[in-house]
Amino acid sequence: MPGEDNVIYIGNKSVMSYVLAVVTQFNNGLSEEVVIKARGRAISRAVDTAEVVKNKFMPGVEVKDIKIGTEVLTGEGGDKANVSSMEITMVTKAKE
Amino acid sequence: MPGEDNVIYIGNKSVMSYVLAVVTQFNNGLSEEVVIKARGRAISRAVDTAEVVKNKFMPGVEVKDIKIGTEVLTGEGGDKANVSSMEITMVTKAKE
Repeated sequence: MPGEDNVIYIGNKSVMSYVLAVVTQFNNGLSEEVVIKARGRAISRAVDTAEVVKNKFMPGVEVKDIKIGTEVLTGEGGDKANVSSMEITMVTKAKE
Repeated sequence: MPGEDNVIYIGNKSVMSYVLAVVTQFNNGLSEEVVIKARGRAISRAVDTAEVVKNKFMPGVEVKDIKIGTEVLTGEGGDKANVSSMEITMVTKAKE
């Protein structure tokens, strides 16, 4: 499915490993847009990732959109818990 | 200074205490806009706060804007560290 490859899910690894994933995604030339997704406590790591990409590695990339939401997780016992989610869309800036 | 009162800074307290602060700020009728600010690991708590306000307490309020950035903190010894920051602006929806 096109468009799925450009999503980076943030988990418990170091910020740098996600930065590398985002930079690689942009540099392979297949996508001009990369979406960083995170839930719960990983949300702050998603922001770190976007900021490091933009400030340290790819000055030609900017944050296009940020969305927040709530997802419902259902446990094995059927118990439900709400968890916050976040999506940061990064794009290559238009050439001037 | 007008406009400063409507900023809620997220720290290490429970999400509910910040939810209460935001709801109170809207309900005192002085501001139609409340800004939630957080840095570092408190960023995920800021998202939780915005989501709980919107979904559980104030359906008439929506997220207008989300900004992320990087701040430089200087330690006592002069050492510097970058920390991610976030601002979520919430507004009362326009009456239809």
